[in-house]
Amino acid sequence: MPLVVQKYGGTSVGSPERIRAVADRIKRTRESGNDVVAVVSAMGDMTDRLIELALSVAPDPDRREYDLLLSTGETQSSALLTMALKACGCPAISLSGALMGVRTDRAHSRARIMNIEPARIRTELARGHCVIVPGFQGVTEEGDVTTLGRGASDLTAIAVAVALEAPKCEIYTDVDGVYTADPRVVPRARKLHRISYEEMLELAHMGARVMNPRGVELAELYSLPVEVRSSFNDRSGTLIDRGDEMEERKHVRGVAFDTNVAKITLAGIPDRPGLAHAIFAPLADAGISVDVIVQAASIGGLAEISFTVSRADLERARAVVEPVASETGAQVVHSTANLAKVSIVGTGLQSAPGYAAKMFGTLAGQGVNIDMITTSDIRITCVIDEAAGEDAVRALHSAFELDQGE
Amino acid sequence: MPLVVQKYGGTSVGSPERIRAVADRIKRTRESGNDVVAVVSAMGDMTDRLIELALSVAPDPDRREYDLLLSTGETQSSALLTMALKACGCPAISLSGALMGVRTDRAHSRARIMNIEPARIRTELARGHCVIVPGFQGVTEEGDVTTLGRGASDLTAIAVAVALEAPKCEIYTDVDGVYTADPRVVPRARKLHRISYEEMLELAHMGARVMNPRGVELAELYSLPVEVRSSFNDRSGTLIDRGDEMEERKHVRGVAFDTNVAKITLAGIPDRPGLAHAIFAPLADAGISVDVIVQAASIGGLAEISFTVSRADLERARAVVEPVASETGAQVVHSTANLAKVSIVGTGLQSAPGYAAKMFGTLAGQGVNIDMITTSDIRITCVIDEAAGEDAVRALHSAFELDQGE
Repeated sequence: MPLVVQKYGGTSVGSPERIRAVADRIKRTRESGNDVVAVVSAMGDMTDRLIELALSVAPDPDRREYDLLLSTGETQSSALLTMALKACGCPAISLSGALMGVRTDRAHSRARIMNIEPARIRTELARGHCVIVPGFQGVTEEGDVTTLGRGASDLTAIAVAVALEAPKCEIYTDVDGVYTADPRVVPRARKLHRISYEEMLELAHMGARVMNPRGVELAELYSLPVEVRSSFNDRSGTLIDRGDEMEERKHVRGVAFDTNVAKITLAGIPDRPGLAHAIFAPLADAGISVDVIVQAASIGGLAEISFTVSRADLERARAVVEPVASETGAQVVHSTANLAKVSIVGTGLQSAPGYAAKMFGTLAGQGVNIDMITTSDIRITCVIDEAAGEDAVRALHSAFELDQGE
Repeated sequence: MPLVVQKYGGTSVGSPERIRAVADRIKRTRESGNDVVAVVSAMGDMTDRLIELALSVAPDPDRREYDLLLSTGETQSSALLTMALKACGCPAISLSGALMGVRTDRAHSRARIMNIEPARIRTELARGHCVIVPGFQGVTEEGDVTTLGRGASDLTAIAVAVALEAPKCEIYTDVDGVYTADPRVVPRARKLHRISYEEMLELAHMGARVMNPRGVELAELYSLPVEVRSSFNDRSGTLIDRGDEMEERKHVRGVAFDTNVAKITLAGIPDRPGLAHAIFAPLADAGISVDVIVQAASIGGLAEISFTVSRADLERARAVVEPVASETGAQVVHSTANLAKVSIVGTGLQSAPGYAAKMFGTLAGQGVNIDMITTSDIRITCVIDEAAGEDAVRALHSAFELDQGE
């Protein structure tokens, strides 16, 4: 029988009613002649509630115990979904991260999958079971439970599909697919029928929450087609695959928007080789991800470096950078949290300079000041004031003709 | 270092504050020179909430998945307690049922412990860790999670103490120890300083919720002293051990009261050998526990059999018994749910007939009608109307001079 790997996110299993609806969908998939492996997230806001509980007993919880605690959310939803399936007459079994064979390294809370040994999953499929597995969790060689990072149930699903050589992975969520922009910000945003891995990756990194970037990377590595669709209806979703380069080049496919941006600026630094390393190595050691980095041309031997971090990391990043600043002779450490990133994403943007000019012109036309600019092959990102962000997104969506059909 | 095995019940770890208080107690136990292994229950009413969730997705949940779901409650509290310990500078590690080596049979929801392989616990103790383990759960040879039945965290704690050859097991709960009667019913009830395994077992079976009967049985089998005490204060509790027979014989030690009693009566049955087996074998097959059984003397060849079951089992028991009744020619199947059991418990009661007479006399003096009577070596139980129950308990408590000090 053909194998379908499905992943159901937190809102898709957010209540007993939703769990029964998902069971019904899995049953229908099976009755139309497929083997099914389903990967589930924790119910609704369960993970947030467990994190809150952890922080209420320990300000900086031990990572091993934290992972064990958080993993119970997905264990619960996988057991509940399996019960619901059996209750409606569909043979099913749940397998924990340990039983399903997701082996990870020991980096608690951000573990990487070393390999998946799908023997038990195959055995249960051969016995005629739908196999339900918890996302987000794995197990070390010693049997300790690990978690893969927030949103990583997508990664589990892709990894399971790859290990089982499934032809496709379906990611079920609470939206109909990948949109040209966030429909809550841009009412005229449209669903994309198809998007390339690279474009999806840029959108995901730039703030589109619809899929976990690590999952997209893994799918690209193994050329696994992924369909993002809604568990709340039967409409077709968005297919993520290699894309058709001939057709898709030189199109802006979407506008991404991310308000989780804070900036630190070091000014008046005597410029010298190794300056950037001196600043960013301690940040990396502290586990702080730096996103956009801009170093202004040195004037009179004095450099200026600005970089962005997530808002949650701002205070920690300042604490790391301030001693470095005084060592390097920097005159100002300035920081601000009220920023946002707007990005346009599309294959081949860089080879067509008109897109950048059009983006900057559109923002200028809205009276929006651009703070920082960063680009990749298929993306142009501007850091701007958060307050101007939503208007900017809508203006860009219109300017690049995303309001019309594909 | 001497080893202390402690068990903390649901109310003892019912909130973040309570978990921090338990961490503080464990830390103090360790700082006074002991190795500590702590067994924890799920937080507060977590198990009830998980059961409710299970029933909302499946009317008769699959037992394997049900056990996996319920086991997450204890996993959460053990991870949280371990975090709290590490946060206050006490080295600790949690071990799941699988890692701690609790091997059970495959009887989901009522699994029996086959053996405990405490190698990993010993290793972690030798590394200087307090070891925190979830109660109530184990794992089959295949790695499937099982649970041991409601309240069985006591059993886990006793089994761990036995496996580690600990000199004693401490059971922490929300009351100060074992009382002569439920203090909510009998305000003058007193805490017992010491009680024998047998007496504790009878009290536990007869409705005293303070300790799980299977735990008491296992402690008796291995002569492990158990102290029941409160996690809310530092008062000494009740020591459960072999007892001092010379002193303790012929004392009523406590009055137990249980309202979870329903009765079924089959009347006018043509008496013949094998009658009881015909009635009770199908009940056993259905997994229904029968408590008190009374068969009235056969009059004119017609027998009458009454038996009690828990109220939750009444409807199922009727459904099992009705076809049997018609096969055996019984004329009446009568059932009632509004009953209660009152019991007096004490070593050597049976060899002193005066106790039974005094109990019946006390109940008669209160105008209480006795429906059924059953006795053991160290217990006399009367089934009475629930409405009369609390007054009956108070009257018996006074009549047997339990209001005064030991």
